Amino acid sequence: MDNDNIRKVSINTIRTLAMDAVQKAGSGHPGTAMSLAPAAYVLWNNIMKYNPKNPHWFNRDRFVLSNGHASIIQYIMLHLTGYHVSMEDLKNLRQWGSKTPGHPEYGLTEGIETTTGPLGQGFMTAVGMTMAEAHLASRFNKPDFPVVDHYVYGFCSDGDLMEGASSEAASLAGHFGLGKLIFLYDDNHISIDGDTEITYSDDIKKRFEGYNWHVQDLGESANDIEKITKAYEAAQQEKDRPSLIILRTHIAHGAPNKQDTAAAHGSALGEDEVKATKRVYGMPEDKTFYVPEEVKRHMEQAIERGEQLEKEWNAMYERYEQKHPDWHALLEKGKALEPDKDWDKDIPEFKPDDGPVATRKASAKIINSFAQHVPYLLGGSADLAASTKTLMEDWGYFGKGNYQNRNIPWGIREHGMAAATSGITLHGGLRAFAATFFIFSDYARPAIRLAALMKLPTIYVLTHDSIGLGGDGPTHQPVEHLASFRAMPNIFVFRPADANEVAYTWRAVLRRKKGPSMMVLTRQNVPVADRSKYASADGVLKGAYVLSKEKGDAPDAILMGTGSEVSIALEAQEKLRDMNVDARVVSMPCWELFREQDENYRNEVLPQKVKARTAVEAGAALGWKEWVGDDGTVVSVDRFGSSAPYQENFAHYGFTVDNVVEHLKKSIAQSQS
Amino acid sequence: MDNDNIRKVSINTIRTLAMDAVQKAGSGHPGTAMSLAPAAYVLWNNIMKYNPKNPHWFNRDRFVLSNGHASIIQYIMLHLTGYHVSMEDLKNLRQWGSKTPGHPEYGLTEGIETTTGPLGQGFMTAVGMTMAEAHLASRFNKPDFPVVDHYVYGFCSDGDLMEGASSEAASLAGHFGLGKLIFLYDDNHISIDGDTEITYSDDIKKRFEGYNWHVQDLGESANDIEKITKAYEAAQQEKDRPSLIILRTHIAHGAPNKQDTAAAHGSALGEDEVKATKRVYGMPEDKTFYVPEEVKRHMEQAIERGEQLEKEWNAMYERYEQKHPDWHALLEKGKALEPDKDWDKDIPEFKPDDGPVATRKASAKIINSFAQHVPYLLGGSADLAASTKTLMEDWGYFGKGNYQNRNIPWGIREHGMAAATSGITLHGGLRAFAATFFIFSDYARPAIRLAALMKLPTIYVLTHDSIGLGGDGPTHQPVEHLASFRAMPNIFVFRPADANEVAYTWRAVLRRKKGPSMMVLTRQNVPVADRSKYASADGVLKGAYVLSKEKGDAPDAILMGTGSEVSIALEAQEKLRDMNVDARVVSMPCWELFREQDENYRNEVLPQKVKARTAVEAGAALGWKEWVGDDGTVVSVDRFGSSAPYQENFAHYGFTVDNVVEHLKKSIAQSQS
Repeated sequence: MDNDNIRKVSINTIRTLAMDAVQKAGSGHPGTAMSLAPAAYVLWNNIMKYNPKNPHWFNRDRFVLSNGHASIIQYIMLHLTGYHVSMEDLKNLRQWGSKTPGHPEYGLTEGIETTTGPLGQGFMTAVGMTMAEAHLASRFNKPDFPVVDHYVYGFCSDGDLMEGASSEAASLAGHFGLGKLIFLYDDNHISIDGDTEITYSDDIKKRFEGYNWHVQDLGESANDIEKITKAYEAAQQEKDRPSLIILRTHIAHGAPNKQDTAAAHGSALGEDEVKATKRVYGMPEDKTFYVPEEVKRHMEQAIERGEQLEKEWNAMYERYEQKHPDWHALLEKGKALEPDKDWDKDIPEFKPDDGPVATRKASAKIINSFAQHVPYLLGGSADLAASTKTLMEDWGYFGKGNYQNRNIPWGIREHGMAAATSGITLHGGLRAFAATFFIFSDYARPAIRLAALMKLPTIYVLTHDSIGLGGDGPTHQPVEHLASFRAMPNIFVFRPADANEVAYTWRAVLRRKKGPSMMVLTRQNVPVADRSKYASADGVLKGAYVLSKEKGDAPDAILMGTGSEVSIALEAQEKLRDMNVDARVVSMPCWELFREQDENYRNEVLPQKVKARTAVEAGAALGWKEWVGDDGTVVSVDRFGSSAPYQENFAHYGFTVDNVVEHLKKSIAQSQS
Repeated sequence: MDNDNIRKVSINTIRTLAMDAVQKAGSGHPGTAMSLAPAAYVLWNNIMKYNPKNPHWFNRDRFVLSNGHASIIQYIMLHLTGYHVSMEDLKNLRQWGSKTPGHPEYGLTEGIETTTGPLGQGFMTAVGMTMAEAHLASRFNKPDFPVVDHYVYGFCSDGDLMEGASSEAASLAGHFGLGKLIFLYDDNHISIDGDTEITYSDDIKKRFEGYNWHVQDLGESANDIEKITKAYEAAQQEKDRPSLIILRTHIAHGAPNKQDTAAAHGSALGEDEVKATKRVYGMPEDKTFYVPEEVKRHMEQAIERGEQLEKEWNAMYERYEQKHPDWHALLEKGKALEPDKDWDKDIPEFKPDDGPVATRKASAKIINSFAQHVPYLLGGSADLAASTKTLMEDWGYFGKGNYQNRNIPWGIREHGMAAATSGITLHGGLRAFAATFFIFSDYARPAIRLAALMKLPTIYVLTHDSIGLGGDGPTHQPVEHLASFRAMPNIFVFRPADANEVAYTWRAVLRRKKGPSMMVLTRQNVPVADRSKYASADGVLKGAYVLSKEKGDAPDAILMGTGSEVSIALEAQEKLRDMNVDARVVSMPCWELFREQDENYRNEVLPQKVKARTAVEAGAALGWKEWVGDDGTVVSVDRFGSSAPYQENFAHYGFTVDNVVEHLKKSIAQSQS
C-alpha cells in the first residue's frame, strides 16, 4: 500500500475495532472512537514520543483521554502500537477482571496515565502533569541536558468543557503559561440527550482565548491528516500558552444510519449497522477484530521508534549522572518519593507550657521543619495559604518564569487544585499536597475520589475543621465531612488531637504511599497534651492509642475522640475520677490505620469487655457506633453549625466537660442494665 | 444637603458602618463593603424594585450577594432601607443567635434571598432564580398582566469567577438568553493570598462573551454613580443576554494604609485605621455606628417607594384574578406547592407478573402519571434524561423562546444544575428536581449541602446507584455516597427496594417540604415484590417497615436492607426457613424518616431483643452498626467497584443469597455467645 492508503486503512482499522469491541461487549461508546480515529492516528504515529515496551519511560509524552467513555480508542491505540494490550483484551472490553474496563483505569492497564471517566477530570489532571513537567524541567534541566522535556496531550469533549472543572483548569494553565499542554477538543455536537444545541452554545474559541490559550479552530477537518498534523506542530511551537485544537467531528463517522446521532454515543451500533459501516470503509464486512497485516506492521513501527527515543534519552541521562551527580541523585530520590535520611529530625516537639496552639499552626512549623528534606514535595492552597498555614517559606510561588518554586497559588479553584495535585503526583518525580478549608473538600470531592481510586499518595491539608472555626458560620463549618471521607475507600483521614499528634500525622502521611491521606486541622487553639503525663504521640502511627490510662488495672469506661475534642475528654476523665469512675481516654486520629493494626492491639486499646463508652467528636455521629457499641453514647454534631465565637458554639453544641460526663454516665447505666 | 452631597454621605455611612461592625465583631470582611458601597447605593436607591416592609412580595427584584463574605454590606443596605435588620443586629455581627451571621443565611434574615458564602454558589443560584422568572412569566403573564416581571441582580467577586461553578452557570444563562440576570463583578484584584495576579489573569470580558453574555467593562468607575446607574440601565435594556458589569474597585476604598491590600479583605481594619479612614471620608471619627439623620431619611424613602410598587402590583394581581381566575389559581397553587387533589391517583401499581423493572424506569412511569397534577414541578437532568428517565413527556425542553416548558436540559453541569434547582425553588411558585447518576452527586455536593442548610424542598433523582450499574466501572459506581448523604443534616435519602416503593417514595418526597429529598434508583432491573404476600409499600412513608414477617410470633433474626438488595434478603429469608431460622425482612428506604417515627413503631419494626441481624446494602458499611448492633453483620461494599456485567459484580462482591445467609448465621452465633 502507498502512504496515503496505509494511513486510510489504519484509520479504518481503528474504527472497525472500536465497533467490533463495543458490539461484542454489548455496551460502550463506539461513535467517538470512530470520529477521532484520524486524530488518534496522527498523534500516535506522527506526534507523540513514547516507548510502548516501557510505558514508564520517564521522559515520555503523556496522553490523557478526558472523554474517558471513549476508552476503546485508547485501548486500540495501545494495542496497535505494541503496548501490553492484546487482541484478547480488546475482546474483553468491560468484562470482569479485564484490562479494558469501561473507562481507562490507571494502574490496571499499562499506558494509561490517569483514570478518567467523570467528565473534566482528565482535563484538570493533565494540567497538573504539565505543571510537573515545567517544574522538573526548571529544576533539573542543565545546559545540554534537557532530561525532562515532554508534552502532555489530551482529547476532550463538549462534556469536559461544559463541566466547570474545565474552567478552573484552563484558567490555571493559561495563567501559568503551560505551553506544553495540548488538548484536542472533539467538537461533535452530540451528547447523550441529543444535539448539544439544546443546552450548549459557548463560543469555545473566545472562551479559551479569555483563559489565555492558543486556540486553533480547524473546522471540518476531522479526516484531514495533514491539517491535524500541522495543527499539532503549531501547538508544539507555541511555547508560552497551552493549546486547544478545535476539531469539528462527526460521531460514528461513516455509519450510514447512525453518524451524527446520539444513538452512536453510548450504545453498540448493532450488527447490521456495523456491517454496513465496514462496507462504507471498504473493510471486509464479515471479519471482526480484523487488523490487516500491513496495518499491524505500519503501526508497530512505534516500537522501534520508541526504543530508539528512550535509548537516546537513557544515554543522555547517564551522562547527566556523570556531570551532575547531585541533581541526578535528587531526581532519583523524587522518583522514589524517598525523603532524606533523618528528614524528620527538625520536627519540633511542642510543649504544654508554650500554650495552646491551633493544629494548623503546628502543621506550619512542621512543614517548614522538613520542607528542605523532602525536596520532591510540592503543594499549595486554594487562596488560603495564610489560613491553612501551608506555605513553605523558603520556596516562593510557582508561576510563569518561576516554575522551580514549590508553593502553588491555586486560586479559588479547589476542584482544579485537587485534580492537578493528582496530575503532579501521577507524573512521577514529585509528590503534591493540596490545602483548603475542610468544608471546601466538597468542591474537590470528585477529584479526591479519583485519587483514592488510583491509590495516589496525594495529601490534603484541610483546616477549619468544625463548628470550632467560629464566626464564618454554617456555610463554612464542616459537619458531615469526616464521615463522608471515612466512607470512601483507600483514603486515610487523620484528625490529630494536638500539635504533637500533628507531627506524627505528617510522619504517617509521608510514610504512606499506597493511597491518599487527609489531615484535618483546627482553626482554633487547642491545648498541647502533657506527654510526660500521657502517652507519646507516636501512637498516631497506629491510628488510635491509649492517650491517658486509667488508674486501676482495667478501665471502668472509655472516652474516645479525635482532634480538638480530645482535650475535653481528658478534662472529663479528671472529673470522672472525682466521681469514682476510672475512665481511659483513647485518641483515635485515624480509624483506617487503626483497623489495619492486629486484633491484639485493637483489643488492648479498646478492651471488648468495657461496654461503657463515649465518643466525642465535633462532627456527625454516623459511624461511631462501630467503636462505642450498643451501650455507647456519642457527643456529636448532627445539625448544621452556627456563626458565633467558637467557645459559644462548643458550649451550645454540647462540647463541654459536663456534657461529656453526662453522656458517659448514660452509657455506664446502659451497660449495666 | 444637596443631591450630590446626600449621595456621598450615604455612601460613606455605608462604609463606616461596615468598618464599625467588623471592628466590633473582631472579625469579618470590611474591605469589599467599603469599595462596593457606591454600587450598592445605586442598586438599592435607583435600580431595584422591592418593598422593605414585605420582603416576600412575589414580584420583587431578587438580589444575590455571591461574595457572601461581604455580608455586612447586605445587612447595612437592609437596615438603611427599612427591612427588619436593626442597628442592634449590625452590632451583633457574627454573634450567637444574631440575624447577622458571618455569611447571609436564607430563612434567618428577612430580605436574604439565598444563603451564600461558598464561592460561586450565589452566582449559580441566581441563574436558577432568573430561569424561574422566565418560566413563570412565560406561563402566567397575559396581555396587560405582567404578573411576573422582575430582574435578578447580584454582586460577584474574582473568587466566584475562578470557581468552575461560574462557568457552568454563565454558560447556561448565556445559552438560555436570560436577559433579566444582571451581575456586577467586583474586580478588586485582591484575594486572601494577596494580589490576584499570582493566580488569575482571565480576560473576563472575552470569557463571558464566549458564554454569550452582554459585558460592560466600566474600568475605574467604582465611585461614579452616574456611570454605574447607566450601566445598570443598559443591562436592563438588553433583553436577550444576561449582563455582566465589570467594575474595577479598590478594596477598603479610602483607608489610608489598607486600601488595595489583602489585610482589608478578611480582617477588621483596627481602631486607628478605622478612625483615619473616617477622617478621609469626612465622617466624625469618634462616632461609631453613626447614621446621619438626613441619610436615614434619604435611604428610608425606599419604604414608601416599595409600598407603592407592591400596591400597584397587588391591584393588577387582583384584576388578574378576575380576568384569569384559572391562571391565578394555578399560580397560587404553585406558591403553596400544593398539588391537585388526588394528584397521585394515576400512579400505577406495579405487579410482580409484569417482570422485574429498574427502579429508575418505574420512576419514569410514576413521574409521567402525576406530572400534569403537580403543575409547579420543573426539572431536568445533566445530559442524562434518557438514562435517569426523568423526562416529563408532555412538556418539552425549557430554552430560549420556550421558557414555558418544564424539562430543563442542564447539560453536563451537575453543580450548576443543583444550585439553579435551588434557585428555582427559592424564587417561589415552583418546585424543582435535578437528576443525574448518583456518582455525580459529588460534583453537585456543595450546592446540595446549601439546599439542606436552607431546608429547601429540592428533589434529587439519582440513578445508577451501585456496582449494579455494570460495565461503566468504578469511576461511575457509587460506594460511599449513601453514607455521605446520611451524614448530612436535613436531607432525606430514599433508596426504594422496588417499583412500588418508588411510587411511595415520590409520595413521601412531594409531601416533604422542609428539606431536600434524594431518591436513589437502580440502573438494573429488580423484582417487583409480591405485595399480596408481603406488606404494602406504603411502609415507605414511615422510612422503614416490616416487608416480610416471620412465620412465628417473634423473629429469630432480622434481615434488613435497602434498594436492589432487599430482593436478595427476601430470597435469603426463604432459604433460612429451610434451615429452621425464622427471620424477618425489614426494608429501610429512608433512615431519616424512620428516625422520626415514635419509639413504639421503631421497636415494633426492629425489636430490641432480636440481636441477630444482618444488613444488606451495596454501599459502604459505615453507619449500619446503628441498626444491626454489636452482634450484627453487614454485607456491604467497602472497596471500589469494577467494570463488569452487574450479575458478576454482585456475585464477586458477595451480594448473593448464600453470602447473606452466611452473614446472618455469623450474627446468630455472635448473639448467642
